[in-house]
This record gives sequence, C-alpha cells and structure tokens, in this order.
Amino acid sequence: MKINMDQHELEKLTEEKRYLFLKEKLEKTNEVDIAELLEPLDIHTTLLIFRMLPKDVAVDVFAHFSIEKQKNFVGLATNEELKEIVDELFFDDMIDLIEEIPANIVKKILLHTREEQRGLINQFLRYPPDSAGSIMTIEYVDLKKSMTVKNALSYIRKIGLKKETVYTCYVTDKNRKLEGIVSLRKLVTSDEYDLIENIMDQDVIYVHTHDDQEAVAAVFKRYGFLALPVVDKEDRLTGIITFDDIIEVIDQEATEDFQKMAAMAPTEEKYLDADILTLAKHRLPWLIFLMLSAIFTEGIIRKFEGFLEAVVVLTAFIPMLMNTGGNSGSQSSTLIIRGLALEEIDLTDVAKILWKEFRISILVGISLAAVNFIRIYFFSDVGLTIALTVSLTLLVIVVISKVVGGTLPILAKKLNLDPALMAGPFITTIVDVLCLIVYFSIAAWLLNI
Amino acid sequence: MKINMDQHELEKLTEEKRYLFLKEKLEKTNEVDIAELLEPLDIHTTLLIFRMLPKDVAVDVFAHFSIEKQKNFVGLATNEELKEIVDELFFDDMIDLIEEIPANIVKKILLHTREEQRGLINQFLRYPPDSAGSIMTIEYVDLKKSMTVKNALSYIRKIGLKKETVYTCYVTDKNRKLEGIVSLRKLVTSDEYDLIENIMDQDVIYVHTHDDQEAVAAVFKRYGFLALPVVDKEDRLTGIITFDDIIEVIDQEATEDFQKMAAMAPTEEKYLDADILTLAKHRLPWLIFLMLSAIFTEGIIRKFEGFLEAVVVLTAFIPMLMNTGGNSGSQSSTLIIRGLALEEIDLTDVAKILWKEFRISILVGISLAAVNFIRIYFFSDVGLTIALTVSLTLLVIVVISKVVGGTLPILAKKLNLDPALMAGPFITTIVDVLCLIVYFSIAAWLLNI
Repeated sequence: MKINMDQHELEKLTEEKRYLFLKEKLEKTNEVDIAELLEPLDIHTTLLIFRMLPKDVAVDVFAHFSIEKQKNFVGLATNEELKEIVDELFFDDMIDLIEEIPANIVKKILLHTREEQRGLINQFLRYPPDSAGSIMTIEYVDLKKSMTVKNALSYIRKIGLKKETVYTCYVTDKNRKLEGIVSLRKLVTSDEYDLIENIMDQDVIYVHTHDDQEAVAAVFKRYGFLALPVVDKEDRLTGIITFDDIIEVIDQEATEDFQKMAAMAPTEEKYLDADILTLAKHRLPWLIFLMLSAIFTEGIIRKFEGFLEAVVVLTAFIPMLMNTGGNSGSQSSTLIIRGLALEEIDLTDVAKILWKEFRISILVGISLAAVNFIRIYFFSDVGLTIALTVSLTLLVIVVISKVVGGTLPILAKKLNLDPALMAGPFITTIVDVLCLIVYFSIAAWLLNI
Repeated sequence: MKINMDQHELEKLTEEKRYLFLKEKLEKTNEVDIAELLEPLDIHTTLLIFRMLPKDVAVDVFAHFSIEKQKNFVGLATNEELKEIVDELFFDDMIDLIEEIPANIVKKILLHTREEQRGLINQFLRYPPDSAGSIMTIEYVDLKKSMTVKNALSYIRKIGLKKETVYTCYVTDKNRKLEGIVSLRKLVTSDEYDLIENIMDQDVIYVHTHDDQEAVAAVFKRYGFLALPVVDKEDRLTGIITFDDIIEVIDQEATEDFQKMAAMAPTEEKYLDADILTLAKHRLPWLIFLMLSAIFTEGIIRKFEGFLEAVVVLTAFIPMLMNTGGNSGSQSSTLIIRGLALEEIDLTDVAKILWKEFRISILVGISLAAVNFIRIYFFSDVGLTIALTVSLTLLVIVVISKVVGGTLPILAKKLNLDPALMAGPFITTIVDVLCLIVYFSIAAWLLNI
C-alpha cells in the first residue's frame, strides 16, 4: 500500500502556501489518511485545509478525527459548516460524537438537526452501552415488496450515496416490520421487471436492539454477512449494523479479555488517552484481592517454619515450583478461555478437557521433572533426597495446575461468571497454595521429618 | 436471530423419511446452519440430505464443513458431484481444502479441474503461510477502462453470481495491471453512458502477495474496506481478499497473542482438534526455559540462607511479594502489548509510557503497601519492623515491575522481537529476581543484620 503525502510534506506545503498543489494532492488521498495528517495540526490550520476538501470528503474526514479533535473543531466551525456536518454525518458517528462531547457543544450541534432527528438521537442515546442498539445506524435502504427491480434500482440510484451500505437492502411493510432482505448483487443480476417480493430472501437473520454486541459479532462471524438488521421488540426494523463496526467490536472484546486475564477491570479507553488515576483504579481491585489471598500461602509457610529452619535449602526452590505451576496452569486456562470466547469449546466439553489436560500434564510434568532432576542433582550440591522432593513436587503440581487451569474457566462459565477471570493471576494464586501443601507433604515424607 | 431446524428435528425427519417436508425446511435454512446440522451425521445420511439441496446451496454447505467432514465426503461423492463442487467452490476454499487433505484425495479432486486451474492451484500453494497470497481468492470482477457503466453492469449481471464479491470491481489493463477500482454503489448511482475510466478511483490502496496477513488486517481496519486487491511484484492483480476472511485473521492473530502471552508456541489448530502430543510440544519449551531461569532466584535465596534461618518469618511473605510484583508487571505489559498490536502505541511512545507507568506505579504501590501494612501490623504477630520491611519492599517492587512491564514490550519491538513474548510469565521471572534482591536489601537495612 502507499500513502500519498506525509506529515512533513503537508506542513511544508501549508507553510509555503502552495494551496492549489496541496488541494490536488489531497484529492488523491484517502479520507482516513487525511484525517490522520490533520490530527496533530493546530485547529486553525486544520480548518484552513479542511475547507479545501470537497463536501463529501470533508464529512468523512471529520468522522475519522479523534473525539478531542472533533470537540475543538465543532467549537470553531461556522454554523454553516456545522449544519453540513450534521446533515451528512452517518447517524452512528453522530451518536458517538454526542456521547463524548460537553453539553454546550451538544447544544450547538442539536441546533442544526431537525426535530424528528432530535427524537431519534434521544432514543439512540438510551440504548445500553455495548448493545446492538448502541452501535447500529439508521442509514439503510428500505424497499417495498411491490417494487420492481427497476424501481428499486432507480430508488437506490437516488438515495444510495447517503446510505451506509446499499449492498443489502431491507424490505419492510407499512408498519416498518421487516419482511425480507435483498442484496444489490441479486438486484443487478435479476430481470428488471421482477418483483422484489419474488426475489427477496424471507428467512432473514436479525438481531434485537438489546442484544449484546459480542453476540452480534458472533452472528457476523458465523454467517460472514456484510450487514445485519436490528429490530425492536415489535420486530420493526430500527437500524443496521455493518461489518466495519463489527471489526471494531471484535478487537474491543479481545482487548477486554486481555485486560481481564491480566487482572484488570476492562476499559475501552486507549492506553495513551487514559489518565493515570483511571488506569490505577482499574488495576488496584484485583491486585488487592490477590495480595490479600496470599494469606493462605503465608499461613502454610508459617505453620512449617520449624521445618524450613531445619532444611532451609527447601526455601530456595519455592519460587521455581510456584512459577512453573502457575505458568502450566495459565497455559491451560488461556486456551480454554479463548476457545470459549470463540465458541470453539462449550460447556458440554468439560470431561473431554479434563481428560486431555490430564494426559498433557503427565507428559509435560514428567519432562519438566526430569530436566529439573538432572539440573539439581548433577549441577548443585543439595543431594538426592532434595532433588527427588523438588522434582516429584514439580510433577504433581504441573498435573494439578493443568487440570485446575483447564476446568476453572468452564466452571466459571457454568456459574455465569466471566471465564476470562479464571486466567493466570487467579490460577497462580490457587496453585501457589496447592504447591506448598504438596511440597511440604512430599518433603516430610521423603526427609522423614 | 432464529434457526429454522434443530439437530433433533432433522434426525427425526430423516428417520421418518419425510423427505419432502425436510427439503422444504432446508430451503429456508441458511447454508452455515445446514452445514452445522449435517456435521455430526454419518456420511451416508449426509450424502442423502446433501443431494436434496439446490446446487448453489450445496457447494456453500460443503465449503462450511470441517476439513474432516470434507475429506469423508470427497471419498464417497460421485464423480459428477465432485466435478460440480470443484467447479463451484470459491478458489480460496478449494486451496484450503487441498492443503489439508491426503494426496490421494487431492488427486481425485484435481482430476476434475482444468489444466489452467491446476497451474493456478500450484501457484497458490506456494504462497507462504499467513501471507496475503495464502488467503486471497481469484473470483473478482475485472472491468476495462473503456467500458460504459451499462456494459459493466450487464457484464456483472452475467458473471456476478460466480464472484466472491461484486461490490468492488477492479479495472485492469491488458497486462492485468491494476488501474483503478469502482464500487457497485458508484456503478448503480452513475449515468449508464459514463465511461468506467471517468468514474473509477485511481488511487487504489492494495497489498502485495507476500505481505503478512496481520498487515493486511491492519489495512482493512484502517479504511473499513469490503475487499482489498492483491498485486504481485509487477503490480499485476492476482487476487482479492474479502472482509469475512479478514475477520478470521483478526481472531487468529489475537489467539496467537493470547497463546504467546501465556508462554506457548502459537498454533492455529483448535484446542479440541489438537492431539495431546502437539499440545504438549507447544507448551514445553517456554516452561523449561522459565523453569531453568529460576536458577537466579535459587541462587539469591541460597546466598541468604543464613539470613532466612535467623529471621525465618521473612520466608512467609516471599510468595505474596513475588505474585503482587508479577501481577503488577503483567498488567502493564499486557496493556502495552495489546496497544502495540492494535497500533494505538508506537515505538516513539516509550518515554511517555515510562513516565505514565512510573506515576501509576507510585499510586498503586502506595495503596498496596498501605493495605498490606495494616493487615500485617494489626492482624498478625510479626511486629513493626517486619511489617515495614514487607510493605516497603512491596512499594519498590510494584514500581520496578510496572516500569519493567511497560517498557520491555517496546524494547522487544525495537529489537524486532515479538512484544507478546514480554508478557506475564517472562515479566514474572525477571520481577522475582529483582523482588528478592530488594527484599533482602531492605530487610538487611531495617533489621540490622
């Protein structure tokens, strides 16, 4: 791929006031790239360059600005420019904007909307966050059963440029009830006198306004659709969701899982944009909880203090045993959590997983114990009994960790908890306790203490 | 959403030989759902039902079978059925199939391809795995500059049903060089006597056959495209990639990162499909490496054995300190790794990240140290000096962990290593060592040993 112009060139052309050449260059540049080029510029230069753009491009560029930039921009744009943006912006982009900006700027924007549109905006703002309603848009092509293909195509010709997608069209009755869908592919490959009624697909797959966006993403993945219709409780078509918005959802959901699995409260805010108080607040609760649950390991060690005083070398291997156990468990839980998220694994698979993890853990445990035994026995001075104690503990703890790591996410899902919470940090905390119990038991047995 | 028929109903209708009713039901069912319904059935029942389907639906159903099922199917299908599948299957689906099935079945399939197609298949099989070439398909609509909109539309009408997408059309010259693209939206909203030359977009964003699929996914996300053209070294159009394939790539890349971050070698194989030897082999190398690197913590503890013998209670807090440090570091590294993967963070941000993590770590560290001090001093019997030692260590180790966790992924990226490797397990191993050094130093100082 290629980008037409870099930051440096843009700034140079602006400084030298070579506006005509700049305008030509911009015409050949994708809106997304223009938005990125303008992002770091001060707002006056932004406005200057923005005004060179053809209207349809300008709105797209605006839609790709960061919220921060959009705020600044709305503050300084003329009323006419604002009206144009509001008129041309896709509805979902406008909702995103309104949700983020301060009330006084919202007012300034709402001045330029029609009353009917204001009603819709209010309705959309009430959809729960992360619901289908909160990510849908209203710019779809609606057809009627009685239209011919020719009618439909000429209708699309008239309104098509203002719609988010024209590639799937929605057939509704007079009460906005969804009756069918027809793709533009079907339209252009059908006879022009065919009736929409006869070529539409009546078995429509749709989602509801209150469905969770994760479930919506799963439907997109399953069927590979370009767009999905969203209906309300009365099955009336209220909006559509397009694949590009779903790609964002997929990334967001994966990011949330990454965050939860690293013991953080999830957030959609980008790292560099988030302030340190917010970031600290997202990290603290789980850290405190996990820290306090170390009370168990502490208790066990203190109970065996005399034991450790007698054979102090045992202490040296505790970190290795705990970490290897924790890592083994995390491996298993990560695979299961991800499998559940991608719906490759479901709740009925628990026995299969247990059996699988058990056999894997025997293989992995024996290998690790062997390597460890060789290292300790031949390359240190601790002697056979200690080497055996440590290696045997390693084998047992790897087996326990993998079985625990493999089943806890499934159990969480069964209890309607988020499986992603059963990841590394939590598994490690459980494994640590089990590890010490196993270690001291085996030591007591082999060392005859 | 709704699904027309469940497994139970399908099996019942088949058993009772109510084929006419079953056929009607199937007509109203999406191909993806049919494939899922047939998946668990034995191959003879599958063939029986498969033969009820209209040809175009049948091929789509076949394309959605698992590879295992496709293998069985190809083994038993008639020559005519095979020919039909090979003729109708999209090229990328055929390549996926050929890559997975045994040679004797490949032969059976290749019998039904034309020579020209066999040449192409060989070419496609040579693209590196995870390259743009390996995921592209050849079924695109190619137009010529000199066509009118009317010509173009009637050409699409003729060939459109056999193309993976008709919504973006590609304009090529006689040497297959890509000259421009035109969307079907543009076509249906333009005057029918306009020339393609005048309405096409010449500033095409494209990728190369050898580009990595992750880079291709980034281009899709950036621009929100439906499809991207793929060109070879001579800028000739060789295929296209559509958004549905990219959604799979996005999931795959996230899964790979999850695996790497949990110290596993990444694999595309689904958990339940993978055999235990493969799974064990993917998990062992990092476990062994991390286990062996515990030689450092061991060394430190053994050096301080006398020390621990004198104040044996210190041992009790080692797991808590190490885990809290490890968890703090993992939080930071996870956010940075994900930010890098989504290109929200780049290499120039290292100073910003360091500064941010430093301030967050002070906040988090002080909070944790305070909670910990209260717990140990007021609710256990270890006394003020030990409580201070442990809490002060906690503060220092949280600061160190977060700074290490925040910067190591960036450094890895700078060194062209995969940042995902600098996740929890690796960070923990480093933090453990630092933790012990800090702990024993502070203890020596405060306890005057």
